[in-house]
Order: sequence, then structure tokens, then C-alpha cells
Amino acid sequence: MAGDDSTRFRLTVVGEALRLFSEKGYEATTVDDIARAAGISRRTFFRQFRAKEDVVFADHEILLARAADFLAGSHDDPWDAVCDAAVLVYDGFTQWRDVARSRYDVVREVAALRDREIVTIFRYERLFADYLRSAMPDAPDLAVVQFAASVTATHNFLLRRMLRDGVRITSSDVRSALADVSRGAAEPESDDDVIVAVFPRGTAPRRVAQLLQQKLERS
Amino acid sequence: MAGDDSTRFRLTVVGEALRLFSEKGYEATTVDDIARAAGISRRTFFRQFRAKEDVVFADHEILLARAADFLAGSHDDPWDAVCDAAVLVYDGFTQWRDVARSRYDVVREVAALRDREIVTIFRYERLFADYLRSAMPDAPDLAVVQFAASVTATHNFLLRRMLRDGVRITSSDVRSALADVSRGAAEPESDDDVIVAVFPRGTAPRRVAQLLQQKLERS
Repeated sequence: MAGDDSTRFRLTVVGEALRLFSEKGYEATTVDDIARAAGISRRTFFRQFRAKEDVVFADHEILLARAADFLAGSHDDPWDAVCDAAVLVYDGFTQWRDVARSRYDVVREVAALRDREIVTIFRYERLFADYLRSAMPDAPDLAVVQFAASVTATHNFLLRRMLRDGVRITSSDVRSALADVSRGAAEPESDDDVIVAVFPRGTAPRRVAQLLQQKLERS
Repeated sequence: MAGDDSTRFRLTVVGEALRLFSEKGYEATTVDDIARAAGISRRTFFRQFRAKEDVVFADHEILLARAADFLAGSHDDPWDAVCDAAVLVYDGFTQWRDVARSRYDVVREVAALRDREIVTIFRYERLFADYLRSAMPDAPDLAVVQFAASVTATHNFLLRRMLRDGVRITSSDVRSALADVSRGAAEPESDDDVIVAVFPRGTAPRRVAQLLQQKLERS
């Protein structure tokens, strides 16, 4: 419950800060303005956030911690676990969609915040890659980095469509988009797997055989 | 030739700056120190670079411009063109491997530079995604963002292994790693493609049929 209270408290401050940034502009809003709007002291603000910039992404910290906690549990399939973690993050943003949407507007206007957002998003990618490496020490590195990057980019793309374009995208849409992310680069490493090719329906059987042979010879 | 001269000039300044950062530390090195070492005036420095931080990544600007120029040309297969652009960037770094390696050491020590590097790398991902969208307006968005993210992550992973671990990784290694990046999410959108699934060699034929059916029904 302490965790929930802290989350609620931080989200309140984030919400007030983003409202002020939208109204007055990011530069013109001071920490005192934010503290006043959130009904806290300047000191309490600085106990929770290092700087004005930090408050903009404070809910990312909450979700990064949730994703890390989730991944630290036990999972049958680490690839699936990463997809589940990404859905959990998506669900978090939908819980406070208004906050996420006002951030989208504020961040778009301030170059320093755009950069900070890119860095923040990269932390999910690194969390996913680090988890996969520790859960599957024998997994091919390239498969891990490609998967972590694709899952993060997919999540981010769908989140942005939901926030910016108001498209209704449910958890289950996100889950099914993530299920399509290739874990494929992992397979050619194992002798026990068959290689996959995708080709146009109209392809001549001989050409199919040729392409398959090429692919098999390469791996 | 003017372009080449400018590249050489900028690389000289970058090289001197990185050497000083390694020797004296990033914070302790001033723009005057860099200008003196590179044999240029402070004014010339500021005509080329906005700030000390910019000089660290100036060769990325060169390579981003090269990649953008390359992609602006005509290409049979846009997916292949992105892989070619990534190889071209890799080749650039191998041309000035010492610069890239000293940057690796300097960036590791300075949090602000690490963030700046993440933001810089993201510009390749955005360049690739933007190009794919313009070259193939009908390509599924998810396929585009996943591919751009995977290609960038793959390039970056191999570059880091080459720089940090001294592993010999040739252009052709990079090319073949990139050839394995899935363009797969694109295919299920087209009625004209056949889906092929990967399964362990030992799988019972009935199970194979079942899995294929599931996959086909989903797409």
C-alpha cells in the first residue's frame, strides 16, 4: 500500500506539473508553481524529484520499476515474459492516459524533453535485453538485442498512436502485435530447427526450392 | 572534394578533442584546449561546432548525412537499401576506428554524453523509418518501426563489440547479420504471401499441420 500511495502522490505531482507546462509553457513554470499546485512544499518536491525535468517522466520511473519487478519473477518463456512486461507498461499508461497525453503535447514543444524521452525509452530496451541475457545466457546476442529493440519500438509506436491519434488500442492489440515480433534470429543457431522462408504465392516451385536451399546453405 | 576536406577537417578536430578528453577528462578540457590542439581559432571551432558536447559526435553528423544521401538515391528494395545504409555507416566508423574507440572510452565516463549518444543513435532509427515510410507508403507501420529498430540495434551492437571487445567484424559480417533481421511482420498483411513457420525437426507431422493452421488463421 505504501507503494500505491507513493505512486498516487507522484502521479498527482506529475499531473499538476504537466497541466502547468501546457498552460504556461515548460520554461515559464517554476518548481514553486508546481509545488503550490500540488499542495506540497518545495522541500517535499525536491525529496521526490531531482529537478523540474524529472517530474515530466516520473511515471516512467514507476513503470520501469514495475517491469523490472515483474521480470525478476519466474517465467516459463523469457521472450513471452518481455512481451508481458511491455503490455504491463502499456496498461500503466492507459491507467493515467490523461497524464501521458499531456506529456505528449509538452514534450513535442521542448527539444530537451524530447531527448530525455528518447533516453528514458531506451531504458526499457536495456531492461529487456539485460533480462533476456540473464534468463537465457545461451541465447544469441543478436536475437536478444533485435528482440528488445523491436518490442520497445512496437510498444512505443502503439502508445504514440493511442495518445496522439486517439486510436483505440487495447492491451490485447498490443499483445498480439508483440507476438509477431521475430525471435527468429535465435533459430538458425540451433541444429535442431528448420529454417523458414516467406515467398509470394505465385513463386514457381523451382524458385521456392532454390530460395530455401540458399537460405539453408547460409545458416 | 570540398565535402571530403570538410570531413577530414572535422575528423581532425574530433580526434584531438577525444584525445584531450581521454587525457585530461571531459570536464577539465576547454574549447580553447581543443582549438589549440587542432591548430584552429576559437572562432573557427564555433563556426563548426555549437558546443564542446557537439564535437564528441561530429562524425555521427557526417555519417547520418551520408546515410540520408544514400537513401535519397534510387533503390530496388527499400529494406535492402536500409541495410546498405547501415553497412555504409559501419564502414565509416571502421575508417576512423581510433576516433570511435576513444569516444567509446570517453562516453562511458560521462553520463551526459551517454544520453547524448542514445539520442544520436535514435536519429539513425528515425532516418531509416522515415525513409521506409516514404519509399513504401503501403508497408505496414509496425513492420517499418520494428525493422528500423532492429537494424539500428544490430548495427550498434556489432559496432560496440568491434570497438569495446576488439572483435574483428567486417562489413560483410554486418551485412549478413542485417540480412537476418525480420521483415516478417510485413508479410501477413499481403494476401499474396505464404506464411512459413519454424518448428523443431522432431515435431510430429500432425503438430506441424496444426501449428501452420494456427499461424495462417491468425494472419
